[in-house]
Amino acid sequence: MAKDLERIKRTRKALHQQQIDALVCRLPENIVMLTGYWPMNGFAFLVFPVDKEPILIAPVPEEELAREGWVEDLRTFKWGLVDSGDPYVSIASLLKQAAVELGLVGKRIGYEGSFEFIAAPYVGAEPSVFSQASLAMFQNAFGENLSDATSLIHKLRLYKTPAEAERLRTANDIARIGLQAFFENVVPGNSEIQIAAAVETAIMQGGTGYKGVKVARAWASVMSGPRGVAAYKPHLLSTQRRMEEGDFALLELAAVVDGWWSDLTRTRVAGHARPEDCEKWKAVVDAQSAALAVIRPGVASNQVDRAAREVIEQRGLGSYFIHHTGHGLGLRYHEPEPFLHPAVETILEAGMVSSVEPGIYIEGWGGMRCEDNIMVTEGGVEILSEFSRQLAD
Amino acid sequence: MAKDLERIKRTRKALHQQQIDALVCRLPENIVMLTGYWPMNGFAFLVFPVDKEPILIAPVPEEELAREGWVEDLRTFKWGLVDSGDPYVSIASLLKQAAVELGLVGKRIGYEGSFEFIAAPYVGAEPSVFSQASLAMFQNAFGENLSDATSLIHKLRLYKTPAEAERLRTANDIARIGLQAFFENVVPGNSEIQIAAAVETAIMQGGTGYKGVKVARAWASVMSGPRGVAAYKPHLLSTQRRMEEGDFALLELAAVVDGWWSDLTRTRVAGHARPEDCEKWKAVVDAQSAALAVIRPGVASNQVDRAAREVIEQRGLGSYFIHHTGHGLGLRYHEPEPFLHPAVETILEAGMVSSVEPGIYIEGWGGMRCEDNIMVTEGGVEILSEFSRQLAD
Repeated sequence: MAKDLERIKRTRKALHQQQIDALVCRLPENIVMLTGYWPMNGFAFLVFPVDKEPILIAPVPEEELAREGWVEDLRTFKWGLVDSGDPYVSIASLLKQAAVELGLVGKRIGYEGSFEFIAAPYVGAEPSVFSQASLAMFQNAFGENLSDATSLIHKLRLYKTPAEAERLRTANDIARIGLQAFFENVVPGNSEIQIAAAVETAIMQGGTGYKGVKVARAWASVMSGPRGVAAYKPHLLSTQRRMEEGDFALLELAAVVDGWWSDLTRTRVAGHARPEDCEKWKAVVDAQSAALAVIRPGVASNQVDRAAREVIEQRGLGSYFIHHTGHGLGLRYHEPEPFLHPAVETILEAGMVSSVEPGIYIEGWGGMRCEDNIMVTEGGVEILSEFSRQLAD
Repeated sequence: MAKDLERIKRTRKALHQQQIDALVCRLPENIVMLTGYWPMNGFAFLVFPVDKEPILIAPVPEEELAREGWVEDLRTFKWGLVDSGDPYVSIASLLKQAAVELGLVGKRIGYEGSFEFIAAPYVGAEPSVFSQASLAMFQNAFGENLSDATSLIHKLRLYKTPAEAERLRTANDIARIGLQAFFENVVPGNSEIQIAAAVETAIMQGGTGYKGVKVARAWASVMSGPRGVAAYKPHLLSTQRRMEEGDFALLELAAVVDGWWSDLTRTRVAGHARPEDCEKWKAVVDAQSAALAVIRPGVASNQVDRAAREVIEQRGLGSYFIHHTGHGLGLRYHEPEPFLHPAVETILEAGMVSSVEPGIYIEGWGGMRCEDNIMVTEGGVEILSEFSRQLAD
């Protein structure tokens, strides 16, 4: 993979400004940003000094994968083999060695101390996370001068580089394969769980190998009928409920493509849509359009929320739009900034990526949401996930 | 859900013995064990005192789900709504209140300090984990007398209660639906990723609603052909490679059913099996049978490994069986104990659950593994995942 020089330059600059001598990372979401390698088990470590070449520590089974990233100095530890011993002993020793070689003992080291939400690795069944066991290992290698760099890392992640924007376009290309499957499968007789599985299958099959992609996975939740999303219950369970003529279904879709995320929603009717449902859906789509129309550098995040909320209020549905208009994303399904919320005034800048997702939820009727992912550009806005917003054919 | 009195009794006894006044948990894998509620976003907190009734803190959207568990004192915080505010402010306040009400301020509190591998929650795209942000909140509520209870919790988890054994039987019932789909889909022309998606789909569709199950999900990896698992690379990527006549495919399958895990492997030939492949497969299956034959209370974990390894060595394939024979599991895809490994001498006891998974991996030929999940019983062993071990029809 081509080295993302812009990402490296920005990271070094931020470390310099914060007087941090190195970052030590072990979350796949930060390692993929800084190395181009997405640790499939989430069990790899990166020492990224402010002014020297980084050292990457990965398990032997992932050696080949790690070499496809751009870090040249790769060191491996045995894991999972009968003669592996305790991998933590090997990792501790490799970290200590890296600290000495890079002159980082006793220096100020930034680490991922406060990531409370993390992106699933490819082996999503069992993420490996930063705990006090890692912290003790870091202290042993680098000394006690450790500094929680969570905010610094999130700030770096807020501005996508051109190479990262391209990865998000690819992730959204693949997520749209899932939207297409959703449209095709919302028909009378199909169950929520069946539709969800069809969406996930379409993304796995259509995404793997697309433009050289190694891993495309998705988590789809399909909620239908009046029992559904009456109160705003994100990620409500998909059930065996079968679609009936005129029912609408809401798809909440997370997709990850080699470490880069998309978060999309569509609502779709099985068969023919009722006029009153079309009217409410138009409010949602118009609200989204209004938000998209105001996004550009210099606009505050709450102005975008206001634009969407005004449309829904004007249709008399304001009390049913019970959540924010959007949130940041990219290296995770949700990132803290920008947050398109009435009370948050982040000034948008080029390179920021956000969801735009107005919705309405009415007890006894159901929930509708339309969500796309966008990037703020110099000239305004780029929709990363352009796809039909039709409620029915 | 019926209260697991045995689990509660054992936990209180362990806390008493370790002089810990309460556990504070936030990992779904520990909360489901102690409450019967599997937090779908992984963002819930449990205060479990040694001698009083526990207090559970869950987000409003999960209230209904949390009430299906057996903890009566449920308190909720707003999350994801436009008027939610910062959920951490609400959680911190609820924790503080619980600490005061339960008389736990300044007491010795056990917490999940060193869980480096965690079970994915239902919203597996974005697990919520224990970080220093939670630690600070715990210190604020309970004081500085916090104690890392990771070992204590793992020890509790090592012995399954009768109710937990029943949940693992259900998880394996559902995982077998995936094995059936694997057998049906390993045919010439199908791709690895297509087979993997078919397995995951079968588990979602067949598992949701089975015996009242809310969530059944799977992570399937299918590796085929000589390029495949030549070196032992667990969880190797499924690709677009299509099965050809005589190819064998290895399925690595993780499945979760309402918080309880199964970890199975089968190897299967597309079309007709070559005699030399059948011979090697027989060594693997015989090794597994030999291991199963020796499992009973009182036997050491390395004796089980020895039984499997001897069979493969006798067939002249010993150097190709490069990993352990099995590992614990139940509340996670992998748990630390028991570990069926030449160097580990854990004495097996009734209630322990393990995988039994001999395999051979030969450069230029491929890899074969057969993995089942078992429970040690008073009388010997119960196979939780009984299913055909045929390489071909």
